[in-house]
Amino acid sequence: MKPLQEWFKNPWLAGTLFLATVGIGVGVGLLLTSVATRKAESRFAYTTKADIAPDESRSEVWGKAYPLEYESWKETSDTGFRSKHGGSAFRDVLAEDPRMVVLWAGYAFSKEYNQSRGHAYAVQDVRNILRTGAPNDTDKGPQPGTCWACKSPDVPRLMAKMGDSAFYGAKWSDLGAQVVNPIGCLDCHDPKTMALRISRPALADAFMRQGKDITKATHAEMRSLVCAQCHVEYYFKGPNKHLTFPWDSGMTVDKMEAYYDSANFTDWTHALSKAPMLKAQHPDFEVFKMGIHGQRGLACADCHMPYKTQGGMKFTDHHIRSPLSNVANSCQVCHRESAEELTRNVEERQDKIQQTRIQLEDVLVRAHLEAKAAWEAGADTAAMKPILRLIRKAQWRWDFATAGNGNAFHAPLEIGRMLGNGIALGQEARIKLARVLSDRGVKTEIPYPDIATKGKAHELIGLKMDKLNAEKQTFLTKVVPVWLQKAKAREDSLPK
Amino acid sequence: MKPLQEWFKNPWLAGTLFLATVGIGVGVGLLLTSVATRKAESRFAYTTKADIAPDESRSEVWGKAYPLEYESWKETSDTGFRSKHGGSAFRDVLAEDPRMVVLWAGYAFSKEYNQSRGHAYAVQDVRNILRTGAPNDTDKGPQPGTCWACKSPDVPRLMAKMGDSAFYGAKWSDLGAQVVNPIGCLDCHDPKTMALRISRPALADAFMRQGKDITKATHAEMRSLVCAQCHVEYYFKGPNKHLTFPWDSGMTVDKMEAYYDSANFTDWTHALSKAPMLKAQHPDFEVFKMGIHGQRGLACADCHMPYKTQGGMKFTDHHIRSPLSNVANSCQVCHRESAEELTRNVEERQDKIQQTRIQLEDVLVRAHLEAKAAWEAGADTAAMKPILRLIRKAQWRWDFATAGNGNAFHAPLEIGRMLGNGIALGQEARIKLARVLSDRGVKTEIPYPDIATKGKAHELIGLKMDKLNAEKQTFLTKVVPVWLQKAKAREDSLPK
Repeated sequence: MKPLQEWFKNPWLAGTLFLATVGIGVGVGLLLTSVATRKAESRFAYTTKADIAPDESRSEVWGKAYPLEYESWKETSDTGFRSKHGGSAFRDVLAEDPRMVVLWAGYAFSKEYNQSRGHAYAVQDVRNILRTGAPNDTDKGPQPGTCWACKSPDVPRLMAKMGDSAFYGAKWSDLGAQVVNPIGCLDCHDPKTMALRISRPALADAFMRQGKDITKATHAEMRSLVCAQCHVEYYFKGPNKHLTFPWDSGMTVDKMEAYYDSANFTDWTHALSKAPMLKAQHPDFEVFKMGIHGQRGLACADCHMPYKTQGGMKFTDHHIRSPLSNVANSCQVCHRESAEELTRNVEERQDKIQQTRIQLEDVLVRAHLEAKAAWEAGADTAAMKPILRLIRKAQWRWDFATAGNGNAFHAPLEIGRMLGNGIALGQEARIKLARVLSDRGVKTEIPYPDIATKGKAHELIGLKMDKLNAEKQTFLTKVVPVWLQKAKAREDSLPK
Repeated sequence: MKPLQEWFKNPWLAGTLFLATVGIGVGVGLLLTSVATRKAESRFAYTTKADIAPDESRSEVWGKAYPLEYESWKETSDTGFRSKHGGSAFRDVLAEDPRMVVLWAGYAFSKEYNQSRGHAYAVQDVRNILRTGAPNDTDKGPQPGTCWACKSPDVPRLMAKMGDSAFYGAKWSDLGAQVVNPIGCLDCHDPKTMALRISRPALADAFMRQGKDITKATHAEMRSLVCAQCHVEYYFKGPNKHLTFPWDSGMTVDKMEAYYDSANFTDWTHALSKAPMLKAQHPDFEVFKMGIHGQRGLACADCHMPYKTQGGMKFTDHHIRSPLSNVANSCQVCHRESAEELTRNVEERQDKIQQTRIQLEDVLVRAHLEAKAAWEAGADTAAMKPILRLIRKAQWRWDFATAGNGNAFHAPLEIGRMLGNGIALGQEARIKLARVLSDRGVKTEIPYPDIATKGKAHELIGLKMDKLNAEKQTFLTKVVPVWLQKAKAREDSLPK
């Protein structure tokens, strides 16, 4: 065999080796250049290039410095697919399930309730909805300033100027010309450092009352807490309608009920049963924390704002939406199953919870009507009081389970438990009602009402929808344009 | 710079290179030897070394050929930790929850019902339990041969000899001297090939009626199907008490109920309410398939019999038990969380389901007592019939959810749904009962009974426990020893 060193005497082989070495060097050099360029690009992308005013509520101004985030944020106007129980278009939930009209009889929610759309619609939808009424020159409308609290980055601006008490205490219509930008950059970010920040007082206050300091939250926690400023259960406390989270004794459906009970709080008196009702808002954060993703330490942003790459840049997708319309970037980061299978798994949770939910709705519809019949048969207040208490408890559980976004996915076990509990309580009310009715001579079952359509349900509870719609139309065509004009004038005077 | 080939003229360097090459060669050689040895060892361990008779029901005979599997199988006498709701010791479930005594009034389960123990106790526990009565010379006892069907590898032996019809149709006590070996090797394995095999007809028949051929099952499927021979919902069909799975129209709680309804099947008439009841057995396989682990294609054996290594040998751990007593080898093969956290997750599922379950039990206890009161108040059969139907439906859901092993973990969502549904149905019965009672002059609520202890519950339903216990004692001291003696004589005559 030729000794090893002989090989290197071959000039062809030596030359090849030399060229190969040069080639590798060039390759490594190119790679390093590419890495350096990408680094420079990302420094370029993530560094403030504009001075953003501390109360800049126009997201398009921020967008000049953060074009990728801004462009993706604009896509919140596409609400996206939300499994077979949802859909990208506008959805009239009361038309889909007219039982809810009966459950909310006497409360504004019975007038109109729609599937929530993307953040881009926040201001527009709160103006459009019948619940905010039709304020005009002579009537300031039914709602307080608090109703704007979660809708716009104009809110931190106004709160800084007015103070939060004056903001909450104002009429909703008083602020209509000021609140025009939908939920955007200023709601979650510090305009100087771009760090996530809490822009509203209610969450920080709730933390303080729990003995926690929200300024100590980690960045990972902040990726949920900025959302928890709004996506929680809350109520309007006292005559000043101060936005307050009922978390002082705990964050479960039972603990929050205990809070409301001990504060003797009632959202409204039910128009049919006269029960002292509670309305749940959207306890998304609380429910999420009780489910397996919350327990494993995930943040809202992990699934609703996963990372995205565009032109070689990795950034947080600000198209906040259902992960079901973005399975590849959200679920599949951790789960290896196909998008179809993962979607099927989510839908199974929704289907099963929905079955129990509808069962509880039927129980509640019957309970309200039976209570109404009991009053009509001359039932006395002493007999009715424990019954109305049971109805309140049962419907609180139903509303808590139903009002949230994604509850059936976030914590199906807890939601199932609360609905089962709600059915037991609601039926308990009906057992007592059967006795009261029978004792008062009502010997046959109160028939289930014909509420096959939203119209029939509205008729049952005596809502004059034509009038409400007409007034709303006037408000939208006469009042809102004036608000928009004033807002434009104010914004036009600001630096671009 | 020195040209490359010059280096190889250095004898010290060339020597070092030579020695290094020899060293690597020796290393690789050693490694290959080690691999070959392990291979030889495992061939030794997994090859049949004894001729096992086709009906060999004594697992200790198999154990001579498969010592590792046999030794681990023997450990099923240690039932193991089963989370805070379970425990390794003997557990008297009726003492823990005396409501069940009321729910099963008129049926043998109200006499005695214990937490299931390891397979090692299968034969012993079915002899000991009050449900099998106290057969003697003059009284053959209440149960048919079918009651042995799942308890012992003596069963396939006897079925082969007698035919399954004669086996089922015999009295349980007729076979007492024949069935002595607890669930073991022959129940799941082919004694010639060691392949997993179906040793009982009921599962294969159920498959056939569903249009499926169980002989086409893959090995992965067989790792669940051998368990599904027994861990399923079943009933004793017809006068011959033929063991039958009610799967013909589907394997959910609703579909099996439809099967029983259309067959007009009733397990017993409730002693208090006179409702035509169904008793669920342990639908473990069906419920497992509806949960996420089943949906992801896992098999029973993956978690209940994970692989184990001993003396360098990897084998299937035949200490079948709760994965909670073996988290490291079961759950943690896939889940990276700590054993404490995983256990907490399981217990949360159990806790929440347990809350709803107890709520349904209270509804059912009340319903049975209110129905009894209604009969006593002179209610007519026409009015009671739909009420008793509702009680049957509600309790079927409770029993299905409760009777299984690990249901609350296997498919918490489905179990929660079924319990919520059960509460709605049970309370519906009570609403109708409130009307019937009120109409018949019973104006006050039927009080919840004092069933704080098992003794009080037994008193309520009128069971004479002293007599039952005394008879059982006589059976265990007089009859069983004779059975054991006969069995020993038979086995002593066989080749060891």
